[in-house]
Amino acid sequence: MIYLDNAATTFPKPSTVYDKINEAMLNYGANPGRSGHDLALKASRGIYDTRELLAAFFNVDNPFNMIFTFNATESLNIAIKGVLKPGDHVITTSMEHNSVLRPIKHLERYGIENTIVWADNKGRIRAEQIEKAIKSNTKLIVTTHVSNLTGTILPIKEIAKVAENNGILYLLDAAQSAGVFSIDLKGINIDMMAFPGHKGLLGPQGTGGLYIREGLIIEELIQGGTGSASGSLIQPELMPDKFESGTPNAPGIIGLGEGIKYINTVGIDNIRIHEENLMDKLMEEISKINNIIMYGPLNTSEQGGVLSINFKDVDSSTTAYLLNEEFGICVRPGLHCAPLAHETLGTLNQGAVRLSVGPFNTEEDIDQVILALHKISKEF
Amino acid sequence: MIYLDNAATTFPKPSTVYDKINEAMLNYGANPGRSGHDLALKASRGIYDTRELLAAFFNVDNPFNMIFTFNATESLNIAIKGVLKPGDHVITTSMEHNSVLRPIKHLERYGIENTIVWADNKGRIRAEQIEKAIKSNTKLIVTTHVSNLTGTILPIKEIAKVAENNGILYLLDAAQSAGVFSIDLKGINIDMMAFPGHKGLLGPQGTGGLYIREGLIIEELIQGGTGSASGSLIQPELMPDKFESGTPNAPGIIGLGEGIKYINTVGIDNIRIHEENLMDKLMEEISKINNIIMYGPLNTSEQGGVLSINFKDVDSSTTAYLLNEEFGICVRPGLHCAPLAHETLGTLNQGAVRLSVGPFNTEEDIDQVILALHKISKEF
Repeated sequence: MIYLDNAATTFPKPSTVYDKINEAMLNYGANPGRSGHDLALKASRGIYDTRELLAAFFNVDNPFNMIFTFNATESLNIAIKGVLKPGDHVITTSMEHNSVLRPIKHLERYGIENTIVWADNKGRIRAEQIEKAIKSNTKLIVTTHVSNLTGTILPIKEIAKVAENNGILYLLDAAQSAGVFSIDLKGINIDMMAFPGHKGLLGPQGTGGLYIREGLIIEELIQGGTGSASGSLIQPELMPDKFESGTPNAPGIIGLGEGIKYINTVGIDNIRIHEENLMDKLMEEISKINNIIMYGPLNTSEQGGVLSINFKDVDSSTTAYLLNEEFGICVRPGLHCAPLAHETLGTLNQGAVRLSVGPFNTEEDIDQVILALHKISKEF
Repeated sequence: MIYLDNAATTFPKPSTVYDKINEAMLNYGANPGRSGHDLALKASRGIYDTRELLAAFFNVDNPFNMIFTFNATESLNIAIKGVLKPGDHVITTSMEHNSVLRPIKHLERYGIENTIVWADNKGRIRAEQIEKAIKSNTKLIVTTHVSNLTGTILPIKEIAKVAENNGILYLLDAAQSAGVFSIDLKGINIDMMAFPGHKGLLGPQGTGGLYIREGLIIEELIQGGTGSASGSLIQPELMPDKFESGTPNAPGIIGLGEGIKYINTVGIDNIRIHEENLMDKLMEEISKINNIIMYGPLNTSEQGGVLSINFKDVDSSTTAYLLNEEFGICVRPGLHCAPLAHETLGTLNQGAVRLSVGPFNTEEDIDQVILALHKISKEF
């Protein structure tokens, strides 16, 4: 089985991640709460350790600016709905995932306007396009860092500059970049950043996070028990408690810490280089195959570890089915929850076959995929 | 180490739960999505199996009426905010957890009224009290099934009848009962039921659920990718997708299935009887100790597996500290995120020491606790 669906979730994880989750579940599987007995304290410290690792990883001084969520979708919903109020305007792009587009479209019914900036046919957005969309009531800009369809890298520094210059908040969706691209939150004017724990950061499913800039006050989406200020019926403003109601996924978060440690040990730049090498090879070899269309920039200087392809007009599900059934290769067809990105490419009906690499893919995996695609190309 | 903090999270879990989570993470740790390659399909099927187990467990015909969430707090927030709109009125009780009280208090700022019905000093609520609180704009009644402070069992059948007779929705918080008390959703008029996966149901942290009655349409709290109707920017109405945006905690949900299977094998009534026996012994023996106050009904016919106590006016944290440090006994002091329940008991300043049993506690555990409490009683 060759796994090339790392943009959906990385698989496998480093063995230390599995080991740590097990250790946490078996030895201190208590509810961390905020105080208490030895087992609760140990779980609580484990969560704090991951919070500290995350803060250091993204160069954030205060670990309490990193909050834990269920997944990046929840993080995005918290950020978008926490900021926008009736009468506000938000700018986003056609390259976004439904986890950005659907909350924003949902808010229309509450009198929150939006502008969607369209990418070119390689998924590229220019910061000037964002700037042109600004209106007097623009409160928030939301963009992805790396497209989950074409892998296109967006010019986030330039967009951040536009936001800063215009006094607008910038929310970055780092779903496809966190853990692969080095992100220095001191070097770039990002107000909020949503990320999954289970993709590039190599943690387990059921983990996600949201960075909220020091001093930025947004409304929480969920109220509940926080183990702090428990005498009050009002959600505490205290970070991170304000956004972390109810029992967290303690073993999952503790496992996520091991994912980050793994990246730190290998070096995030080495992971990126590894993925670039795989992508270079993948794109070069696929360009030699008849009947295949490749989408996106097709250049690793502009592209993350994602490549979408199609055989002429063959439905993407058919190709993915053959890759899976005949060659044991796991890829993802369809729309990848990014309908406007597909509209941008002109693949809304056909979908596309997405191949996405991870740190544990090898050159041999790519060889196998190329071999399989050559064989399939003869069927069409 | 003796663990008596099962009301926070059950520990340990059945070994099959740990084994299954591992198997899922190691062998098919893919993103379930809604279709795709072998690994994704296997994860997806695993989630469906748990959904089916849950539906059967609570006697629900359609497994798609069971939705998976991060925890019971999220479930409660979805249910409360999904139903209530400006101008509506909601009735709840003083025995609720902050996961009910805080969302309801939060909604006051959006013009949603509430009435809190106060329990007697043993945490008891009568259905007539609820009925008296009904106003012309009452839309929802929310109550817990079993208090997380006193263990008091609320008369949910009678409350459900009141709701039904008055055309009001009834949301049950089964945080302390699901997996221990048999709940037949066909035999009782419950419209929505929130429950954690990691307490009585013996699954891992990072899992929760919400039952929504067939045909009841409520607004979702979070929009995002659902893997369904991906071409649309509008959240699909399809159940359970409407409420399950983003990557789920697949290994966690699959592990939860093993928790339910364990309960089915042992028999839920046997688990309840086991906990009743432990509670009977605990209460009988504690009644012989000097200086201890016990709260609640003190009668297992009216009480779940939770007992709160204090030594006279000693701060609950001091007692819990001694139990942990000197005897290795894990209990939870403080307010248990239930401030009005503590106000009901008159323990808002002192807090209380909560002992909560689970299926893996033994009579010997109780013996050890009694011995420890006897020794501590001499210090005060």
